[in-house]
Amino acid sequence: MYSGAVQDLIDQLGRLPGIGPKSAQRLAFHILTEPQRDVDALVEALQEIKRRVHFCAQCGNIAEEDLCAICSDARRLPTAICVVEEPKDIVAIERTREFRGLYHVLGGAIDPIAGVGPGDLRIRELFVRLAGGRVTEVILATDPNVEGEATAAYLARQLAALDLRVSRLASGLPVGGDLEYADEVTLGRAFEGRRIME
Amino acid sequence: MYSGAVQDLIDQLGRLPGIGPKSAQRLAFHILTEPQRDVDALVEALQEIKRRVHFCAQCGNIAEEDLCAICSDARRLPTAICVVEEPKDIVAIERTREFRGLYHVLGGAIDPIAGVGPGDLRIRELFVRLAGGRVTEVILATDPNVEGEATAAYLARQLAALDLRVSRLASGLPVGGDLEYADEVTLGRAFEGRRIME
Repeated sequence: MYSGAVQDLIDQLGRLPGIGPKSAQRLAFHILTEPQRDVDALVEALQEIKRRVHFCAQCGNIAEEDLCAICSDARRLPTAICVVEEPKDIVAIERTREFRGLYHVLGGAIDPIAGVGPGDLRIRELFVRLAGGRVTEVILATDPNVEGEATAAYLARQLAALDLRVSRLASGLPVGGDLEYADEVTLGRAFEGRRIME
Repeated sequence: MYSGAVQDLIDQLGRLPGIGPKSAQRLAFHILTEPQRDVDALVEALQEIKRRVHFCAQCGNIAEEDLCAICSDARRLPTAICVVEEPKDIVAIERTREFRGLYHVLGGAIDPIAGVGPGDLRIRELFVRLAGGRVTEVILATDPNVEGEATAAYLARQLAALDLRVSRLASGLPVGGDLEYADEVTLGRAFEGRRIME
């Protein structure tokens, strides 16, 4: 229905995750009427992220240097490693200010249906880091879903042979949530993990 | 929380309509892991739409030449003009295959709260076209909301002085809809505009 260049942009935007045909159309029209310098800024940002950003040689987090900002920070504790699925999980954990150690990004979770096995994740790289001998604690912070739990269980088995404290993030009711609206799995976990009040 | 280039892209994407901070973050990470050629294709499409697409000198529709594909099509009836708010409304009407005339894009609707008055719309250009004398029918196809109705009412008053058939798109129940779920204004319009069955 649209002339070439408009349809091309709608197609390109429609390939992005979470952007359907209607959103792509609205975005294309927005860009059409936007000042040239705003579109230039977007194009520049798209090119810069590909040019400057890559993945940390040690932990797999996003980085603009060889090591990411966390791995190259001497104030972080090198004795604890928190294992996550994706770099964005690191940002979420950093916001809590609860953890002062280092991270390790797996690049996903074990998912047989999608054809992702342990060999497709950065598990070998994790064991190379652990072989260094400085790490005493590993926190498994994969997602609390089927794939994340399977990955945590797999890693826990593999790590059992090493002399390490291995822990998993607690599952339970979200803070500020309403018990009535919790799904039964979450509520079951909250019971299972109940704590003695002192 | 993010390094410079990642945050820059999140900021640029977050400026777009309908893209919140979470979507912008997800899109930025998607782009980070996408093959370079896919990002190049998106950048190219963004640049091309600004380079090649502008607005039709006659009707205000999007165009890659001086006139849009509809205005330059000799098979279209030059006696009828359908007045719409935005170029995307033309695409929606063209899909119905009900209309064989020409269009006129106002570039919005009268909206005193947003500070848009009749002088901000392409109304003068419409009257210049009508002064040509070939047009015998004007269809007011602005949106069926407060601003669109106000704009249609304003134009109807202005057009009353000319010897033209002026009509407004029908309001009523959507085809395939359910009477029970229609809002009262739509249902009221459906009553008001009821047709004798033959």
